[in-house]
Order: sequence, then C-alpha cells, then structure tokens
Amino acid sequence: MFRRAVPILKGISLIRITTRGFNETRAAYTATVKQPKQTKAMPELNFGKLFEKIDELRPQFIERLSKAVAIPAVSADESLRPMVVKKAHFIKGELEKLGFQDIQMKDLGVQPGPVEDPNLQLPPVVLARYGSDPSKKTVLLYAHYDVQPAAIEDGWESEPFKLVIDEDKQLMRARGVTDDTGPLNGWLNVLEAHRELGMDVPVNLVMCFEGMEESGSIGLDKLIADEAANYFKGVDAVCISDNYWLGTKKPVLTYGLRGCNYYQITVEGPGADLHSGIFGGVIAEPMIDLVKVFSSLVDSQGRILIDGIDEMVAPVTEKEMALYDKIDFTLEEMNAASGSETCIYDSKPDILMHRWRYPSLSIHGLEGAFSTQGAKTVIPSKVVGKFSIRTVPDMESAKLDKLVIDHCNKVFKSLGSPNKCKTELIHDGSYWISDPFNASFTAAAKATKAVYGVDPDFTREGGSIPITLTFETQLKTNVMLLPMGRGDDGAHSINEKLDLSNFFQGMKTMAAYLHYYAASDEK
Amino acid sequence: MFRRAVPILKGISLIRITTRGFNETRAAYTATVKQPKQTKAMPELNFGKLFEKIDELRPQFIERLSKAVAIPAVSADESLRPMVVKKAHFIKGELEKLGFQDIQMKDLGVQPGPVEDPNLQLPPVVLARYGSDPSKKTVLLYAHYDVQPAAIEDGWESEPFKLVIDEDKQLMRARGVTDDTGPLNGWLNVLEAHRELGMDVPVNLVMCFEGMEESGSIGLDKLIADEAANYFKGVDAVCISDNYWLGTKKPVLTYGLRGCNYYQITVEGPGADLHSGIFGGVIAEPMIDLVKVFSSLVDSQGRILIDGIDEMVAPVTEKEMALYDKIDFTLEEMNAASGSETCIYDSKPDILMHRWRYPSLSIHGLEGAFSTQGAKTVIPSKVVGKFSIRTVPDMESAKLDKLVIDHCNKVFKSLGSPNKCKTELIHDGSYWISDPFNASFTAAAKATKAVYGVDPDFTREGGSIPITLTFETQLKTNVMLLPMGRGDDGAHSINEKLDLSNFFQGMKTMAAYLHYYAASDEK
Repeated sequence: MFRRAVPILKGISLIRITTRGFNETRAAYTATVKQPKQTKAMPELNFGKLFEKIDELRPQFIERLSKAVAIPAVSADESLRPMVVKKAHFIKGELEKLGFQDIQMKDLGVQPGPVEDPNLQLPPVVLARYGSDPSKKTVLLYAHYDVQPAAIEDGWESEPFKLVIDEDKQLMRARGVTDDTGPLNGWLNVLEAHRELGMDVPVNLVMCFEGMEESGSIGLDKLIADEAANYFKGVDAVCISDNYWLGTKKPVLTYGLRGCNYYQITVEGPGADLHSGIFGGVIAEPMIDLVKVFSSLVDSQGRILIDGIDEMVAPVTEKEMALYDKIDFTLEEMNAASGSETCIYDSKPDILMHRWRYPSLSIHGLEGAFSTQGAKTVIPSKVVGKFSIRTVPDMESAKLDKLVIDHCNKVFKSLGSPNKCKTELIHDGSYWISDPFNASFTAAAKATKAVYGVDPDFTREGGSIPITLTFETQLKTNVMLLPMGRGDDGAHSINEKLDLSNFFQGMKTMAAYLHYYAASDEK
Repeated sequence: MFRRAVPILKGISLIRITTRGFNETRAAYTATVKQPKQTKAMPELNFGKLFEKIDELRPQFIERLSKAVAIPAVSADESLRPMVVKKAHFIKGELEKLGFQDIQMKDLGVQPGPVEDPNLQLPPVVLARYGSDPSKKTVLLYAHYDVQPAAIEDGWESEPFKLVIDEDKQLMRARGVTDDTGPLNGWLNVLEAHRELGMDVPVNLVMCFEGMEESGSIGLDKLIADEAANYFKGVDAVCISDNYWLGTKKPVLTYGLRGCNYYQITVEGPGADLHSGIFGGVIAEPMIDLVKVFSSLVDSQGRILIDGIDEMVAPVTEKEMALYDKIDFTLEEMNAASGSETCIYDSKPDILMHRWRYPSLSIHGLEGAFSTQGAKTVIPSKVVGKFSIRTVPDMESAKLDKLVIDHCNKVFKSLGSPNKCKTELIHDGSYWISDPFNASFTAAAKATKAVYGVDPDFTREGGSIPITLTFETQLKTNVMLLPMGRGDDGAHSINEKLDLSNFFQGMKTMAAYLHYYAASDEK
C-alpha cells in the first residue's frame, strides 16, 4: 500500500549544461519509430545457459545482496558516514573476488558545508575495470551504493537494514534493495554468472559506483570531468540503472528527462518583522505582494500563465502522439502513486505528455514567513518565494529566465507596492533527450524482448538526473537509463522492495544487453 | 538607532470576550470630547512635596531598579525559570519592606506543553495590598516582572542584565527597564515616597504582578476569574502600565485596542509530498490553490477584498476626525518604527485611523511548504495558510467569521481544483474601547497635565492586550492603560531603554493619578 509517494527520480538539476538540439534527435527518432533500424542487423543470440546460471546462483546473489543492504550506508546522516565508507569497502572486496582490475577508491575530499563536522570526508567513488581488450567495446556502468535514511519507527514492516524475503509476494524488502543496491549488485552478479560458466564477457566494463547520490552526488561532476580522458577514456556507452518502470507490469527503457530552472522571488519591506496589531493596515506587507506574484504564475489546472513559454515548447507531432497510447500506464496507477485523486487529467496521453514533454511550474514554498504550528501575529519583513519550471525541448534556459523575470517584475509593478521585489534564477539544469534507437537502446530493447517476451515501453521521466548529462557531455557518448525495479517499489519510502522477478529478470536483461551491444556493429 | 522594530504591544488575543457596545461608549466619548466633564469638579492638588521626594529618592529608585533588572527573568527560556521565580521573591521582599500586607505568591501550577520539562512550574503571580480603608477607593495596579530574552551577542551596547545609565542621553539601558520592570518599580517607588513623607496613600492598592506576560500570560485569566470575588473584591479601577507613548514627546493615555480574529486555510491534495519532476504539471498543487485564495483576501494597499467587512465598521464622525490632527505623531516616526519607507499612507489621520479604528488583514505565513534555505523541488501535499484580521467597533466576530469563510470557499470553488480546502477560525479576541472621560482617565489626564504641563493625547492601539478585557469583564470595572515609556524604547529589541525623565515624570504621574482619582467623586 502506498503510504508515501514513490520518488522515482531524485535530485535536482544543479548544473548548467546544454544538450544537443532536440530537433535533430527528435527528427531521427520520429523518422524511425515505426521502422526500427534494420539496416545493420543485430544477431539473435541464445542466452539459455547464461539465464540458467543466473537462476542457479540465486542463493549466492541473495546472500550478496543481504550483506550489502545490512550496512546502513545513509549518506545524509553524518553519524553514519563510516557505514557508507564500510559499504564502499564491501563492494571493493566483492569486485576483487570477481577478478576486477585497477580498483580505485577515489577520494573526493572534505564535504562542503553546511555540515556538523567540518572535516567530514566524502565517501569514495569506487572505480573498477573488467577487461581491456581493444577489440571490444567499453561500457561504463553507473550505480550508487548509498541509500536513503530509514528507521523501523517510520512504519516499516521489518527492520529496514535486514533483507527480508516475502515468499507470498515474491519480493525482497530492505532499504536500498531497489535504490540502488539491487541494480548495483545486479552488475556484479552478471559478472559472476559469466565467470562461473567460463563465458567471455563480450565488452570491457568500467564500473563507477558513488556513495553520495542521495545527497546531491557531491563531487561526482568533478570526478567525471577529471577522469574523462583518464580512467573513463575509451568508454563507448554509459548505462545507468537507477530509475524505475513507469508502472508495475511493463519493462521500460528511458530516453528523456525534463530539465529544471529554479527561481526565487525576494520581496523586502520593513527593516524587521513587525507586529500585525501595530502595523497591520498601514504597512505594505511583503507577504501580500509575494502571494500576488505567486498567484500570477500558474493556475489551478497547471497552466503556466507567463507569456511566451508555450511558444518555446516543441510541437507534438502525429507520430509522437501515437506513442503514448501504446504505453502501459493508467490513471489508477497515477492515483496510487500520488495517494489521491487529484490528477488534473483523465487520459493517459495527457498525463504522460504533461509529465514528460510539457513544462510545469510548481510553487515549493517560501522562506521568512511564519512556518510552524500555532498562531503568530507577525508581518514578515522579507519573504523569499521558491518556484521552479520543469523544462522540455526546445526551451532555452536564458530565454526562459528573461520571460520569468520580466513577468514577475511586471506583475509586481502593477501592485503599486512600496516594497522591493527581485526575481532570480537559483540554478538550472537542461532537459536530456536521447535517441532511443541508437545501438545501446536497440541492444537493451532486444535484451528486454529476450527476457520478458515483450518490447519495452520507451519512456521519458518528468524529473532530472543531472549525472546523466554530465556523463553524456564529459564522455561525449550516449547514455541509457535501464531500470530494474517497478514504479511501486517505494524507493524513498517505507518498505522499499524489489520483486524477485525484477531482480532476476533484470540481471538477465543486463547480461543480454551487454551481449547485444557487443554484437551490434554500431557504437 | 532602530535595529529592529519596537513591538509596542505584544501578545495575541487568546480569549473570546464581548465588550460592551462601542456605540454607547463612542456616543459618550464624542459627546464629551470638546467639553471635558466639569459637572463634578476635581480639585486642583498641590504635589510639590511629593514630586520633590520622588526626585530626592533617585539613588534608592535607581538602586532598586538596578537590582531588579539584574535578575534575568526570561519567561520564554525554561532554563531561566528559577530566575523568574527569584525575581518574584525579590519583589515580594520589596513589598514587605514597604509595608504591603497580605502578600501572596499565587501558584499557577505546571506549565502546559509544549515544554521540555513536563514538571515545569509556572512562576507565581505576586499579590499584595496596601491599605483596606472602606472609605477609600481601591485601585488594582497590574504589571509584569518577566522580560523578553536578551543576549549581548544580539547587538547590545552593554550587558543586557546590567543597568547602565547613559548620562549623555539621560537614559537607562537594560532588558526590562521599560517593559515592564521600570513601571512595576514605579508603583513601589510611589509608595516609598509617600511613606518617606509620612503622607497618606489616598486609595487602597491591590498589586497584581505576573511573571508570564511575555509568554502568553499563561494562567492569569483563570487567576483573575478565581480572585474576582476574593482577593480582587471591591476593586474600583484597574490601571495597567505596560504600553508606550505613540511617539517620543507627548504623553498619552490609551483607551482602545483592536481585536484579532485569527484564521487558517487548509488545502489538502496528494497523500504525501511529491516530487515536482514526476508530478509537476499533472497534479493539482495545494500550494497553488492556497496562493490563489490568499491573493483574493487583500490588496497591496491593505484594502480587505472580502465583501461585507467594510459595512460593519463604525463610521467616522466629524468629531472623531478632528481628534487625529491633534495627536503628536509624524510619518517620520512611523518610518523609524518600521525601519523602512513602506507606509501605505502619507497623512497622520490616515495612518492613525488605519492603525486604530479600521480593520486590517495580514498574511502571516503557512505551514507545510518548503520553508528553509536552498532549493527543494517538493510539491507540498498539505498547506495550512495563516492570516488574521484586526477587528474594530462594530465588527461582530461571528458575522466576520461567516463572511471570511464564505469568501474563501467561494474563491476556492472558482478555481475548479480537485483538492480539499477548509477555512477555520483559530481564535478571536474582541476589540476593547473605553470611555476616555471616565473618572480614572480624567484623573490620569489631570495628573499628566500636572507633571508634563500638557494635556495627554488620547490614543488607541492597533494591537491587543487580552488581559485588559479579562480585568474589565471579570472585575466589572474600568481599565485604563497608563504608559510610562516612549514609542522608541525598543521594548522587545536590543538596547531597551527608558529615559530618566520618563521614569521620574512617569512616577509623578502615577502618584498624582492616585490622588486625583481619590479626589474624584466618581468611580
């Protein structure tokens, strides 16, 4: 049961990166969507022995996952930092056992503030290689070993840092089991299966496992930039397994993310907070001005009221429209995810398009006003409102900023208030969209079909994973998001779970992906 | 210099009390304003010796004040509770030395939560009598001995709990010096001056000194109700010295306070906070609905936009209009107090009327949204907006509630949102208005004239002192607010001060007030 919403994608865009033009990608994409690339055929492969071995190694795989999730590697809790580091070393040990080479524990230095301990060390990024055959392609596999906080008092059915197998529901329950320790272990297990069979691993692997993903991936951007021409040299494709199926039945591959421009509006008036009894009615209240500006941004149906934004959004083509109907998703799943019946749209295409390919504007809150329980008669002297716009192709960040700031200034001016108002961009991160028919996606689609017997849905996500863009930009290569878990896994919630079928089918998909990608004559 | 605003009146109305009709009072008031009551003449008195004695006792009075303010009786700081109690005992000792009788330390029991220490005892209310001559009138003198928090790190020029005399500026500086230890000591000093002279105190005195005023006067309402027919039996008039002059030059007597109806709007949507990346654009956001409702309440010029409220406000008469011009107050003082130039009005009558006799609506903040520094991409699932309306004659609380709630419901309905919205009254406290020409006010006016050589301004205040209404209702007697300090004393701010002239002239006014009131043939 949903007690809390499932944050399928976490983090906010903290970087400013321009991706290649969407039009180009979309042109390629829409041109091919009804005619998958057949020009350079990818051979059908037989995975009988490999899949059998993966099933056969079940006790070992459960054992490895059990040991991994038992370490409470909560990156957000300073007091548990030694546990995060311990988990890094556990992974290092597993990598050594499995014959990985050139294992490095990359030191990211001291964590920048605000922190309690000014000398708090960041957990290391674990790097490792498997194979360095110049005749093979090289795939970088990213995952993270840190987890969200969890305590049984939050409402867990069992101890969060102890793996529980629910045989009735055929699932595993523990913090991190789906986000992201399960997928991380998945790659190690795929390696083990190959070794047990004496089977050649068809690509060179570069592992990149970080321990700060749940806390903003601090330090990772710089590491990727630093290692682009070093440890990561020669990488042909990046595969990130850190998101989820859209729903609970259909496997998906994810080829797009929205961006995010985050703004703040500062309204300043009196020199200090004032008493509403004494000053109410004679002082222009910053809070009143702020709600007027807030109110002008968006309506209760989610329509952005800032002129010029709609015009920047890439138009929907007929071919694109046709895609949404095929995707396995229902309004009921949406309602289950939000824990309410407050969805603005009824139809599947409307819901999906407004999550993935249209911009949205959310008002997150404000600083400076009375924000706790009770009844305080304060006139806040300075309030800082926070809102963000999720961006999509072909919105230009700088142009958007101008529209937003001009709009807020215009509305504020119309109020005739003696207060001061300033609207600023806090940070932005561009949308990301990939070609879902490049060699990497095609290989993953074939792998999915081989394992699940169905073609995957090609999905986008409404949120942002900034690291996706960092990899793409720094390594100048394609990135693919290959999820293992389901949309109802409760990644950041209580009773986080991973269905056993998703774990084992997921590993088979990972394995098959490597083989299909290796066999493809494209990169 | 103003670093923070001066909260001249503190506290919020926590009680629901109906005062006598304003029209009746106003009729009496406006009928007499140009013709002060002369029907029953109040004799002119000669205070030469008494005033000389007050000046002569300066070293003793400074010494007593110095000892009193040295005790950090911060009622809001649990760890300083023993200091609050210590100060109560210090006052008890002074009362004993001065010959007060029937001194009682009234136990108010354990402080209700939220508190750290579940057994935290409330500080006692100190009661004492001086005289019980049935031929004399009886005056209850209220003051409080607790103070606001203070620390030198906040920016004080000197240790806050050490009395400093600034000879250049002719003022005393210390926490509590004007709020309210100075005025409390004032009454003790007036007594001492009489005793030193062997002069008869012309009225029976009942002292009521509390130690929780800065923390909501917890327990005092009940004590007053309990003692109305006991310790407080026979009280003819109540005098509260716990507010301030409007400005810095002209003495005032205060005869009115606005009331306060405090509301909250709860907008509920999703079952839990959601990620704006995933749900932005498809979920109806409670925060958006709330800012729409907020925005409909009031404009940036302070005009309340709720239909029907203006009609409830007692009309301004010509006679009333004439009063405002005479009052010593300037826009510059207003700007100094707010630390800004954000006043909505330019003219003195507009400013005063909007502080005192027109309602105002302030938006204080909201619970449930993102309220700290930084950039969080949350869609709050439930937000609780807080606003209040300062009420004035002849607004009826219940009728106001209906107008407010109906308005919010109507606006919310017009949004077409699938969320739920509820508007509720959290608490109300009625406005208070007295007849500024009753015997007590007339005596205080004559006393002011005798000391300062000018007639006082009769002022109202925009805020609320709930205890005023409690005394009036429970003791069925008149209450007068007789301020000692100036509008720029910085009562809750750093560098709280009391001008030496206000302390000594204030004590002389207090003394003369008792004599004039005793000599009046009205009660």
